[in-house]
Amino acid sequence: MAYTVQQIADSLGASALGATHLEIDAVAEPSDAGPRDLALAMKPEYAEKIGQGRARAAMLWQGADWAALGLEAAIIAPRPRFALAGLSALMDPGQGWDSGIHPSAVIDPRAELAEGVSVGPLCVIGARARIGAGTVIGPQCFIGADSVIGQGGFLREGVRIGPRVRIGDRFIAQPNAVIGSDGFSFVTPEQSGVERARATLGDQGEVKSQSYARIHSLGGVTIGDDVEIGSHTCIDRGTIRDTQIGNGTKIDNLVQIGHNVIIGRDTLLCGQVGIGGSVVIGDNVVMAGQTGIGDNLFVGNNVICGGATKALSNIPAGRVMLGYPAMKMDSQMEVYKGLRRLKRLFQDVADLKKTVSNLRQSD
Amino acid sequence: MAYTVQQIADSLGASALGATHLEIDAVAEPSDAGPRDLALAMKPEYAEKIGQGRARAAMLWQGADWAALGLEAAIIAPRPRFALAGLSALMDPGQGWDSGIHPSAVIDPRAELAEGVSVGPLCVIGARARIGAGTVIGPQCFIGADSVIGQGGFLREGVRIGPRVRIGDRFIAQPNAVIGSDGFSFVTPEQSGVERARATLGDQGEVKSQSYARIHSLGGVTIGDDVEIGSHTCIDRGTIRDTQIGNGTKIDNLVQIGHNVIIGRDTLLCGQVGIGGSVVIGDNVVMAGQTGIGDNLFVGNNVICGGATKALSNIPAGRVMLGYPAMKMDSQMEVYKGLRRLKRLFQDVADLKKTVSNLRQSD
Amino acid sequence: MAYTVQQIADSLGASALGATHLEIDAVAEPSDAGPRDLALAMKPEYAEKIGQGRARAAMLWQGADWAALGLEAAIIAPRPRFALAGLSALMDPGQGWDSGIHPSAVIDPRAELAEGVSVGPLCVIGARARIGAGTVIGPQCFIGADSVIGQGGFLREGVRIGPRVRIGDRFIAQPNAVIGSDGFSFVTPEQSGVERARATLGDQGEVKSQSYARIHSLGGVTIGDDVEIGSHTCIDRGTIRDTQIGNGTKIDNLVQIGHNVIIGRDTLLCGQVGIGGSVVIGDNVVMAGQTGIGDNLFVGNNVICGGATKALSNIPAGRVMLGYPAMKMDSQMEVYKGLRRLKRLFQDVADLKKTVSNLRQSD
Repeated sequence: MAYTVQQIADSLGASALGATHLEIDAVAEPSDAGPRDLALAMKPEYAEKIGQGRARAAMLWQGADWAALGLEAAIIAPRPRFALAGLSALMDPGQGWDSGIHPSAVIDPRAELAEGVSVGPLCVIGARARIGAGTVIGPQCFIGADSVIGQGGFLREGVRIGPRVRIGDRFIAQPNAVIGSDGFSFVTPEQSGVERARATLGDQGEVKSQSYARIHSLGGVTIGDDVEIGSHTCIDRGTIRDTQIGNGTKIDNLVQIGHNVIIGRDTLLCGQVGIGGSVVIGDNVVMAGQTGIGDNLFVGNNVICGGATKALSNIPAGRVMLGYPAMKMDSQMEVYKGLRRLKRLFQDVADLKKTVSNLRQSD
Repeated sequence: MAYTVQQIADSLGASALGATHLEIDAVAEPSDAGPRDLALAMKPEYAEKIGQGRARAAMLWQGADWAALGLEAAIIAPRPRFALAGLSALMDPGQGWDSGIHPSAVIDPRAELAEGVSVGPLCVIGARARIGAGTVIGPQCFIGADSVIGQGGFLREGVRIGPRVRIGDRFIAQPNAVIGSDGFSFVTPEQSGVERARATLGDQGEVKSQSYARIHSLGGVTIGDDVEIGSHTCIDRGTIRDTQIGNGTKIDNLVQIGHNVIIGRDTLLCGQVGIGGSVVIGDNVVMAGQTGIGDNLFVGNNVICGGATKALSNIPAGRVMLGYPAMKMDSQMEVYKGLRRLKRLFQDVADLKKTVSNLRQSD
Repeated sequence: MAYTVQQIADSLGASALGATHLEIDAVAEPSDAGPRDLALAMKPEYAEKIGQGRARAAMLWQGADWAALGLEAAIIAPRPRFALAGLSALMDPGQGWDSGIHPSAVIDPRAELAEGVSVGPLCVIGARARIGAGTVIGPQCFIGADSVIGQGGFLREGVRIGPRVRIGDRFIAQPNAVIGSDGFSFVTPEQSGVERARATLGDQGEVKSQSYARIHSLGGVTIGDDVEIGSHTCIDRGTIRDTQIGNGTKIDNLVQIGHNVIIGRDTLLCGQVGIGGSVVIGDNVVMAGQTGIGDNLFVGNNVICGGATKALSNIPAGRVMLGYPAMKMDSQMEVYKGLRRLKRLFQDVADLKKTVSNLRQSD
């Protein structure tokens, strides 16, 4: 679908300049752009690339001289990266799926589908599941018994939602996401080596071989509005009460959320993050890829964890953390600097010992 | 399904006190509990929460004064966490699936399904697969040719089991678990940089660009009795012989088990653990989340690895390990303490150098 | 299918010795081998095992005295591990799937399937998808609209390929692999704490709660020839242009490839590797399991990363790296040695301080 430069700018609350009637089919990187593409060159360092492509219009940084760049039209937004959100939503060609209920889907007669729900081929929807108006269930998805999904949701292919999961409006799930797997919770008849090692910080005492009994997950998962869950992410059900994800929280691919976890609002968990059982995470937290949070810990509001941070203890609100074990980022950077100079430090101490020994002998 | 307090206590081998005829529908956290729920308050710190809910009966810690807590009945178990295993099994409402063979399942006529097997909608079961009595194959699962699953198994939705996989009794698999993916095994025509870097511990020598030839996985996977495999976990097939998982071993979500791995009995691998190819792991091992074990290593019986432990060498039996690279937990804790004081150590050494230099001059 | 020892040796370019007419059904480890198996004993340390099995023929190391080992025939290859690639391909019994288009597959009439394509039961193939000659689409796979897969590909069960993905010839995908999930890309209306923490290396400044706007992925994924993708691996689509994987690159299970990533030729990424958004990786790179590369970084040709390496900065071509944060492997090994001696270093410095203090007093 084509839009004029003016229409695009209006939809973004941005300024349109020049030949604003030019029609745009798609967006492109400057050097790849054709004459009906909007080139994205939102920083001055991309200026040169514009000449390498054939764009007639571009989204540019503030203060850019679009005419001098050989363009006929430009869009200038005050915060270009934010404008990209609106622009990408406008230009998204979607998945190319047919709407409606595909006849190959296996839908329990007791399920309730609101107006405008689409169900893709080869889906399974369980008893008493309720799907809100306009929600799209992609091909080969599974929705368990008694689960609820709100309005305006979008599930990509192969998503699995277990029983008794409650999800709010505008939910997005990427291919093969799993919500409502059972918690990983086992117990030995007698106290185990792990229980003792935890109590003693490292000594598991006399070891006795024991088999495990399974603690079943009786809880479900409760997910707020405007949540997105990535491919191959798993969210386990709670043991007694629900695992909880707050409004606006976004979770990337291959993330593990253990049983009983509570996550606040507008929190971002990037790829391969692992959250142990019964962890509580606040609002507006950001965890970079491969971050790990041990069982039963607490992470306060507005915490930021750098890539691969491994938390072995609670993180107070507002902290910026890094490393294994997690420390405040600035302290960790000091440690890293120290490690690089460690060999020299050993040499210095060895030299000092020699010098001091000589001094003592001469003393 | 409802049970009396007495029935529940009997099934757990626990004591029932007070109005033991009270009927219980479900279990709940103390503050959420309604009058037909059994509140779980197995430590004294939950006592206060009981008054916030409406429970008439609770499972309590030993020595609790149930009447003083305003309850009409109580269950007291000697090891409450172990009792929770039995209680949760008793009260589990299950998945809400119909039993029997769903007509939409695609089952090879050469497959053998024992008595009482259920196969969910849109499953695929391959030639000569054999499924033991009472096993439930959930919706949209795949069972490969010549694979065997024992009795009393339970596969959640979307589980994939490749060909020639042999699994024992009472197997549980979480949504989208994969068993029998091909091993990741490639070889270059001539010695590669990695082979040289391994031999020299870091020097890959002259680098020559080479493409890889694939080593196919001819082995399968053999899994014992009472094993559970988590969501999005992958267990690769062996190259020549089977990858092996012993009886009673439990594997959490997003775990990678490489080709040829041998894992013993009653071992626990938590979320996102990664086990390299040809690793041998003993019995009663526990690896916390995000632990990694490099290719070809050995991990002895009763080893415990703390969160995100990364093993670059063998781990003898009975060790409690932590960190990257893995060390004994107590040594690692010493290292962590040292790192926090590293900046001061550099300062101390700098000061010492100055002092000693002055001493030498004055000497 | 059976082959003679001579036929096997010929297909591998290896030498056949002894009773080369012996028929072989399968390969086996020496101690498991039966009389129609080819025992694999490609290093002298396996010699003893041959007597424990019943093999009449074996693939042996160069210079082995096969007759003295009690064998009737032997195959000797100059680089045995490379010969194993050809041998395993020859002896692979495959998946046991029927060929042809299964009637339960849901194939859009606008999709184009070339000659000899197989589509397994319960697959979904979208509008205008094109599948090259001889490619096998396993059971329960999904191929999105406008996607292209080349010739001779092999997709195991449950693979998900999103829309507008372009894949070359001889592609292999393991069960449940996902290609073309949406990128994880969100932006706040105003500058966020993370943006500030990045700029200041740790100080996120005044925190303001903000919700996220989604940046849609308009790009696809382009994958070269001879690529293999593991189980539960995710490859995200690009934001504007395609995410790219070069010819001959092999990716193991549970790997995360972020949006806009570019990976070169003949690169190996092992299990649970995580590649952040917009990372550029060269040719002939090897990353061991659980390696992580932060967003926007560059990794040069021929880099090798040891297990669980976490890169927080660019890696120049040819480097062999290890650790968190990543350092050159030899430097990191020095650091590890230092850490083990850190406690003693603190003691040495404490002793020195005391000695020097005494010297000063006596001075």
